[in-house]
Amino acid sequence: MRGPLVAVVGGSTCTPQEAEWAAAVGRLLAERQAVLLCGGLGGVMAAAARGAKQAGGLTVGILPGNDPADANPDIDVPLATGMGEMRNALIVRAAGAMIAIGGGWGTLSEIALARRIETPVVGFHDSFTAGLDIPRVQLPEEAVRWALEQARRGKV
Amino acid sequence: MRGPLVAVVGGSTCTPQEAEWAAAVGRLLAERQAVLLCGGLGGVMAAAARGAKQAGGLTVGILPGNDPADANPDIDVPLATGMGEMRNALIVRAAGAMIAIGGGWGTLSEIALARRIETPVVGFHDSFTAGLDIPRVQLPEEAVRWALEQARRGKV
Amino acid sequence: MRGPLVAVVGGSTCTPQEAEWAAAVGRLLAERQAVLLCGGLGGVMAAAARGAKQAGGLTVGILPGNDPADANPDIDVPLATGMGEMRNALIVRAAGAMIAIGGGWGTLSEIALARRIETPVVGFHDSFTAGLDIPRVQLPEEAVRWALEQARRGKV
Amino acid sequence: MRGPLVAVVGGSTCTPQEAEWAAAVGRLLAERQAVLLCGGLGGVMAAAARGAKQAGGLTVGILPGNDPADANPDIDVPLATGMGEMRNALIVRAAGAMIAIGGGWGTLSEIALARRIETPVVGFHDSFTAGLDIPRVQLPEEAVRWALEQARRGKV
Repeated sequence: MRGPLVAVVGGSTCTPQEAEWAAAVGRLLAERQAVLLCGGLGGVMAAAARGAKQAGGLTVGILPGNDPADANPDIDVPLATGMGEMRNALIVRAAGAMIAIGGGWGTLSEIALARRIETPVVGFHDSFTAGLDIPRVQLPEEAVRWALEQARRGKV
Repeated sequence: MRGPLVAVVGGSTCTPQEAEWAAAVGRLLAERQAVLLCGGLGGVMAAAARGAKQAGGLTVGILPGNDPADANPDIDVPLATGMGEMRNALIVRAAGAMIAIGGGWGTLSEIALARRIETPVVGFHDSFTAGLDIPRVQLPEEAVRWALEQARRGKV
Repeated sequence: MRGPLVAVVGGSTCTPQEAEWAAAVGRLLAERQAVLLCGGLGGVMAAAARGAKQAGGLTVGILPGNDPADANPDIDVPLATGMGEMRNALIVRAAGAMIAIGGGWGTLSEIALARRIETPVVGFHDSFTAGLDIPRVQLPEEAVRWALEQARRGKV
Repeated sequence: MRGPLVAVVGGSTCTPQEAEWAAAVGRLLAERQAVLLCGGLGGVMAAAARGAKQAGGLTVGILPGNDPADANPDIDVPLATGMGEMRNALIVRAAGAMIAIGGGWGTLSEIALARRIETPVVGFHDSFTAGLDIPRVQLPEEAVRWALEQARRGKV
């Protein structure tokens, strides 16, 4: 087995700031031998995958549709589920830890489900996660360090 | 086909106030020929199902485990999924509209997913949903009226 | 809770003989207070649901798509899953027993999964199930009697 | 993206002959840059993963339970689904092509579902698949050549 699976979740469109965070997170995860798990599409998912590939990492995309060709070009393993948004629950379940960057209702549902099933989740200090009782960080380095510590601790 | 499917979601433990709301919602849904959809377990789910059955309604419980006997005694159709918390996404997907009462992270994930996939969802004026941008009501009558209007309008 | 959930599975197109069997099975299940569980679409599913409704029964359709309006007109509770053919596994999991009538690869996958997860399944003496090691019957009455005995025995 | 995803399915216990075929299939897939997709457990799954890793390939295991530690030691990416046997449908859906080796009811359900949703599937000339109308081969080389041709042709 490779390093732990760390999910990066966020919107399929995102701000330049969010894309920058996501790319840095992807790169740092790859440098530490973690496998990047994401939804396989655009925005935060694409930026994280691009960062991971630039650092030689491994990327897995769990897609909502039936066609693996929907994945962004930096996904090594495009898993087409045909389950629509229900595939979010697969990401949260399979991840050893999760990093949330920006996002909307879909990302919120993933964060909340992560808390519910005890997948460790960390968010950035952005307005979106402001009201949620989850650990928050300001830098990609902190997010990755936290996620890897949690993932190595193991889930039940 | 019967009336619309309306989901009632909330914690598997709940306050007396929440149980009262849930029971009233269940009863009102039944009186208006709606089918009650829920997670089939205790707390808000059990109170809503009890209310619905007292008014002669039909109740469907989408269970996390493999055993239909896990359902509360007021569930007519206990659907054992064996999918764990992923079954929440099935409830949100299948519902024509959704009423959230109290709850914790699991309920929050259901509300957020409902917004994401455009299942109409309404909450009560309780502290839990305070920060969320969803329609809110103070009385069971309002919640049921709103949900039935939305469900009859149709999704997709 | 109502009577047990009995699934009727088979093709979305079917022969007149299969439709006749399915309608009789649906009617007999309803007369014995069982809830009919099926895939909610045409062919064997529609015939079974029609038979059940003519006898005043309750019918649940677990649909592959997102739109409850895809259900045949005799489905009381149309559960839209958005999971595609993966919804077959939900039917097999939730059923207390299963009756297979004709069908193709989809039905075969349901029969095999039923055997795998120990949902009792019975087939008719038709060519399709000829090679499979499952109990087989010649008459709807036998199928329903067998399924209800098994369902009442309970699954683990 | 790496090469295509090819699923190898079969029993969690298997004969020495089946293990030998699975290991050779895993090795050949790895040599041709395909990603091995499997159920992540023992028997045919473990033998295929071992063969793939010995040839430096990448292996993905889609697990029935919640714990990634259930995966056999040659799985690089252990995806815990918590969906039980329903996870079989994810394997069949995500694979560009599928190779079945021996197996029982679970494997039969995967073959039948593959035919249903048009994932190309090939079996060996063993007794288990004797009655099924699917392409069959006698050697691992033939199975891998056929699967890669099909997977490169693309689904949908």
